[in-house]
Amino acid sequence: MTRTVYLNGEYLPEAEAKVSIFDRGFVMADGVYEVTSVLQGKLLDFPGHLQRLDRSLKALGMGNPLADDEWLAVHRKMVELNQIDEGIIYLQVTRGNPGDRDFAYPPETTPQTIVLFTQAKPGLSENPQAKTGLKVVSVEDLRWARRDIKTVQLLFPSMAKMEAKHRGADDAWLVEDGFVTEGTSNNTYIVKDGKIITRELSTDILHGITRGSLLRYAAEAQMQIEERPFTIEEAQQADEAFFTSASAFVLPVVEIDGAKVGGGTPGPVATRLRELYLEESLKSAI
Amino acid sequence: MTRTVYLNGEYLPEAEAKVSIFDRGFVMADGVYEVTSVLQGKLLDFPGHLQRLDRSLKALGMGNPLADDEWLAVHRKMVELNQIDEGIIYLQVTRGNPGDRDFAYPPETTPQTIVLFTQAKPGLSENPQAKTGLKVVSVEDLRWARRDIKTVQLLFPSMAKMEAKHRGADDAWLVEDGFVTEGTSNNTYIVKDGKIITRELSTDILHGITRGSLLRYAAEAQMQIEERPFTIEEAQQADEAFFTSASAFVLPVVEIDGAKVGGGTPGPVATRLRELYLEESLKSAI
Repeated sequence: MTRTVYLNGEYLPEAEAKVSIFDRGFVMADGVYEVTSVLQGKLLDFPGHLQRLDRSLKALGMGNPLADDEWLAVHRKMVELNQIDEGIIYLQVTRGNPGDRDFAYPPETTPQTIVLFTQAKPGLSENPQAKTGLKVVSVEDLRWARRDIKTVQLLFPSMAKMEAKHRGADDAWLVEDGFVTEGTSNNTYIVKDGKIITRELSTDILHGITRGSLLRYAAEAQMQIEERPFTIEEAQQADEAFFTSASAFVLPVVEIDGAKVGGGTPGPVATRLRELYLEESLKSAI
Repeated sequence: MTRTVYLNGEYLPEAEAKVSIFDRGFVMADGVYEVTSVLQGKLLDFPGHLQRLDRSLKALGMGNPLADDEWLAVHRKMVELNQIDEGIIYLQVTRGNPGDRDFAYPPETTPQTIVLFTQAKPGLSENPQAKTGLKVVSVEDLRWARRDIKTVQLLFPSMAKMEAKHRGADDAWLVEDGFVTEGTSNNTYIVKDGKIITRELSTDILHGITRGSLLRYAAEAQMQIEERPFTIEEAQQADEAFFTSASAFVLPVVEIDGAKVGGGTPGPVATRLRELYLEESLKSAI
């Protein structure tokens, strides 16, 4: 099935969706994005994603081209046109096409470029990796210093993902000044003596929407949470390790740099948190 | 005049040059670029730009889609079709369009995207800023750690350029750990007691082609050169300050964070180096 994508107000067959070579997203990486998961045809954590989109745009001095209800309508239309039951919707906004290349921003009247596309992922909620767990390796974090802005500057995460694959792992955990920042496209956690430990929010990491919801659900379930950085060594010696992202929800990590974590099988806390997230986020899905 | 641009083997009117929304350059900033200056219809420092392109591509695990003589032919064709006497040719290579978005690299058989466009800049060699000098302000350098790879991750340089403008300056000099790394799109220098001081090559800065040629010409002219980092304070107290880039050649800086440098007018060393660069680089222009 050919996907229908959204580009600047039009719904187009994916092969026809093209942007100018002068688009700021193409020549300057001057754009931000969001990924929203779809389960049972509904959008998970949608208000959170719209809030973060707005935050990213503001941080780059860009306006928000659509109102919240317009974003919702476009997302719902994308779900409908592409018959997405389980999957994701990707959205990207760039500073548009000024018609030429310049480091200086174009006039604010330049229309922004808005792109949305879907990825169908049947079985997303029943990901077998939730049962087996994943292997990660540590990679030095070389990204820019404003990782709280969700920009399309994804070259380094992409490089780190490939390094992980070459080293026989599923993903990389990025390390800066000796402490884990996050995964290539997810937030990271360890569990020790029943306590969930995850790095506190700052400009060093993405402010994960799934992270925010999960920590709220966990707190409501009376689970202990400590927000602070941890090292690879501490993670290797933890009882459990896991990560969260919009499309992974909660997935356990069972090996870090070759060392098995918690006996090498997913632990009860990560398993419980995955169930909790799926249950709770579906309640507020729209 | 409508520009003719090059896109994947075709010469097209600029308005028709479009890439897929799935291009790795658009969704992942997974691309590299070069800018070559044109004077008297000839390419300056062209072998240097091709060498650096190759180096950038290799650093990202990409092949070089064209042979050197093919690159030269395309550049010359662009000069001819767009009647460029003085100006620049921009070239960008991305990892292409895999048809979908994934952090993992696409198969190596995925055709890369190749884009070239021109910018006519009549009077480039007689830039009046060479006589008046420019004002810069310092901005904390928040870029990723592999600035030696000339990628399209230009969002931060673009932000810093805008900050400089808002602060009434022409450009920003980026500072990391107390030392100047480089400008937003240029290498930086100071002059003290006749000696040219500029930061040594590392992953911290772009390996400027103009920088390399200029230092060679300066050494041949028996000028003293010291390659080491310097601070903003040292630059403010220097006899002269200047920067180099492919399209600026050599341009003097006469004010840094509000402090006049060398009395606030371009000094003899920067002026001499600009003449030297234009003279020598034209000799080897092709």
